[in-house]
Amino acid sequence: MSDRSPVCLVIGAGDATGGAVARRFAKGGYTVCATRRNLDKLKSTLEQIEADGGRAHGFSSDARVEAEVVRLVDDIETTIGPIEVMVFNIGANVPSSILDETARRYMKVWEMACFAGFLNGREVAKRMVAREGEGPHGTIIFTGATASLRGSANFAAFSGAKHALRALAQSMARELGPRGIHVCHTIIDGAIDTAFIRDNFPDRYALKDRDGIVNPDHIAEAYWMLHKQPRDAWTHELDMRPWMEKF
Amino acid sequence: MSDRSPVCLVIGAGDATGGAVARRFAKGGYTVCATRRNLDKLKSTLEQIEADGGRAHGFSSDARVEAEVVRLVDDIETTIGPIEVMVFNIGANVPSSILDETARRYMKVWEMACFAGFLNGREVAKRMVAREGEGPHGTIIFTGATASLRGSANFAAFSGAKHALRALAQSMARELGPRGIHVCHTIIDGAIDTAFIRDNFPDRYALKDRDGIVNPDHIAEAYWMLHKQPRDAWTHELDMRPWMEKF
Amino acid sequence: MSDRSPVCLVIGAGDATGGAVARRFAKGGYTVCATRRNLDKLKSTLEQIEADGGRAHGFSSDARVEAEVVRLVDDIETTIGPIEVMVFNIGANVPSSILDETARRYMKVWEMACFAGFLNGREVAKRMVAREGEGPHGTIIFTGATASLRGSANFAAFSGAKHALRALAQSMARELGPRGIHVCHTIIDGAIDTAFIRDNFPDRYALKDRDGIVNPDHIAEAYWMLHKQPRDAWTHELDMRPWMEKF
Amino acid sequence: MSDRSPVCLVIGAGDATGGAVARRFAKGGYTVCATRRNLDKLKSTLEQIEADGGRAHGFSSDARVEAEVVRLVDDIETTIGPIEVMVFNIGANVPSSILDETARRYMKVWEMACFAGFLNGREVAKRMVAREGEGPHGTIIFTGATASLRGSANFAAFSGAKHALRALAQSMARELGPRGIHVCHTIIDGAIDTAFIRDNFPDRYALKDRDGIVNPDHIAEAYWMLHKQPRDAWTHELDMRPWMEKF
Repeated sequence: MSDRSPVCLVIGAGDATGGAVARRFAKGGYTVCATRRNLDKLKSTLEQIEADGGRAHGFSSDARVEAEVVRLVDDIETTIGPIEVMVFNIGANVPSSILDETARRYMKVWEMACFAGFLNGREVAKRMVAREGEGPHGTIIFTGATASLRGSANFAAFSGAKHALRALAQSMARELGPRGIHVCHTIIDGAIDTAFIRDNFPDRYALKDRDGIVNPDHIAEAYWMLHKQPRDAWTHELDMRPWMEKF
Repeated sequence: MSDRSPVCLVIGAGDATGGAVARRFAKGGYTVCATRRNLDKLKSTLEQIEADGGRAHGFSSDARVEAEVVRLVDDIETTIGPIEVMVFNIGANVPSSILDETARRYMKVWEMACFAGFLNGREVAKRMVAREGEGPHGTIIFTGATASLRGSANFAAFSGAKHALRALAQSMARELGPRGIHVCHTIIDGAIDTAFIRDNFPDRYALKDRDGIVNPDHIAEAYWMLHKQPRDAWTHELDMRPWMEKF
Repeated sequence: MSDRSPVCLVIGAGDATGGAVARRFAKGGYTVCATRRNLDKLKSTLEQIEADGGRAHGFSSDARVEAEVVRLVDDIETTIGPIEVMVFNIGANVPSSILDETARRYMKVWEMACFAGFLNGREVAKRMVAREGEGPHGTIIFTGATASLRGSANFAAFSGAKHALRALAQSMARELGPRGIHVCHTIIDGAIDTAFIRDNFPDRYALKDRDGIVNPDHIAEAYWMLHKQPRDAWTHELDMRPWMEKF
Repeated sequence: MSDRSPVCLVIGAGDATGGAVARRFAKGGYTVCATRRNLDKLKSTLEQIEADGGRAHGFSSDARVEAEVVRLVDDIETTIGPIEVMVFNIGANVPSSILDETARRYMKVWEMACFAGFLNGREVAKRMVAREGEGPHGTIIFTGATASLRGSANFAAFSGAKHALRALAQSMARELGPRGIHVCHTIIDGAIDTAFIRDNFPDRYALKDRDGIVNPDHIAEAYWMLHKQPRDAWTHELDMRPWMEKF
């Protein structure tokens, strides 16, 4: 039997941003539903949330497969509660010269970083719109990057997917804003404090002591702020970067 | 004798955004120094802040005159306290066909909406930079508008000044961010709840009941959030508009 | 036996822009290779080019299928001549509410308007780069639209694909420009003089008498100009719209 | 006694871009009216145009002074011919830390690079609009730079003026396009072949042999192309940079 408390769905709850968002919204009273390809890797995030008195559920749903997305949203809405917040957080940055880029990889990057955003955004929006008139009915946040604004050399696949995700966020905001759904897009510009950066870019990671890389908890705090904004002053897009980051 | 508590300087503390910002930062513990061309019109804002237990000072300094700006900043730093926050908030939107625009008005709009921002930004930045190394030493926020991004027909003067102000904010952010000063630019897109809108655009103002025009207190809250952001995740630019606003 | 004259490859040679580009480059001395899903519909363009003394070949290759693209480029380079110009011109604009958008359609729009651009761009770029040092070795032009810059309501699929195509063009320009390949992106803003506009938007089409819709020959002329630009002053992006078009 | 042939007015006819534009439009049959602060420095450009069989007049009018601009345009229209083309070409790039920027210099850069553009643009547009209905009646081109799009550190004055000039061009295009005046803005990104670059940036200038700096004649050719575009396919903005330029 469900507790029917409002749900925050985090698509792509990795160790960094997604995990931090999950913890922040759990702390704020939401039942968190988090997805990740490898369910085992979600375990510590879920346990931490529960240890802190929150509620969390993990799912290993493939965010790029329509049937799985439809089923996931349906399951959550039926057995857990109404999805009031959705954060889409899947990245897939694999640099390559355009001359060496493979069709398989170019497509996969788009499927992960954009198509999955469309599938999850659409399914969640359908549920939110159905609650129009019942008061606040939804926030949808897409996580972007510098590549959302600029197609750099060797980043054709990633910047293409991120540009397309930004267009999706804009289009959804323009259609769904007037129906009471707050659609946001963020530009994270700079290295985030992750195991990946620690292991592969040690010089960069060393800047952590001077706040030179982004703390995922601070991204999560901004997302919470976006969700709590009163509807007369909604932010659609904001950027975030360390104070010392070149831009 | 001065209390030396940190100061929030609000340039252009009109009835709406500037006044709300002044109240918000006073509530947050700052001594507010507010400027307005007509000092009498500042009275109610200052009295309200003091009635709420805050500290506020009013100045009628002309923000477009270098000597007055230099003196204002010097006076505040000498007799009141270090300026930790500056919010520049002067607008000057007078639409006109390019064919009828006068040289005097085109220049005046720029002086008010951009040149004054440069003068105040530079003077305040000099003081903030001198405190580098003493911990957090400054936030500077410039208020922009839709015209910051788009030169619409009949808005050559206003959009020119606002584009230039945005370039100023970017240039300052890129130079001063690595020196520990958080420079922000906001895009306010939509009517703000002011006497001007109430008296001149009654149809628009009627949307207030449905949160269709921006509450200045919510802009002020976002500015407070920007000021409190940890330096590993600074936002340089964000937009704000009512949920029902076309964009 | 091949004449080995330089080739202009037009991907998506429809009745309007693609056909006009084919005719313009044929007139400029290029052997035109034009693709279209339905080869029959290419017939009149090819015949007209030959009647005017030009050389043209038609192909029905599916631009979204890697193997077909690889084979097409290989065939042309082996049997016809070196591809010196490639114009990518496939659109696929099917408006839809985000709530009704299907996964199949969203993906198909991207495959046609972006993925096909990647496949053809990459294959052609490989050949051009291999001729580095042999003098001028290539121009690649991607046709964009207003949706390349803005995600409007009900245009999530199209604007996503067009944003991604623009990122591709930028990324390729930044990597391949310094290797001597001129990569361009155009923003066509306004109705083009096509049978589709004539039959479905008669009011719009009526503006033709006053030059209110774009003549495809004028787009083609701009593409020819881009191709002929000396390499010290290359244009990466330009827009085109009728004089009376709102923007 | 006047020959009443159409006039191309070049504001800021320096040795590089402005001079090249003057020569190109003279070659195209226009009577060129060129302005420069120091009339002596215009001499060689004027003599060259006349030696090539063209018509040219020089003026030392101060483009920042309204009365002088009004008089200049009036003189030309009265005694020489109708101004059909205006190219505004004054730059004023003096980098400075924001902390050291003077009010005088910040304002002067804006007056030269933006305010003068407004004054000349308005005066010329008034004349062109008065000829509405008499066939083609005008092209106005503003020369921009990378700083038109980006406020870099140490470029607050220049990027502010250039952003404002771009807003002016957009606003004029949106108002005057539907009245038959073609308003354009160009982004010149990269060093131009000038004495200034030769003398101050020898390493940069050495790239000239490899077409690594922009030839002013090629900018002029693009301006000529813009002027000749048919009105169903007008370009408002295009960029130009050397093939090897980073962007």
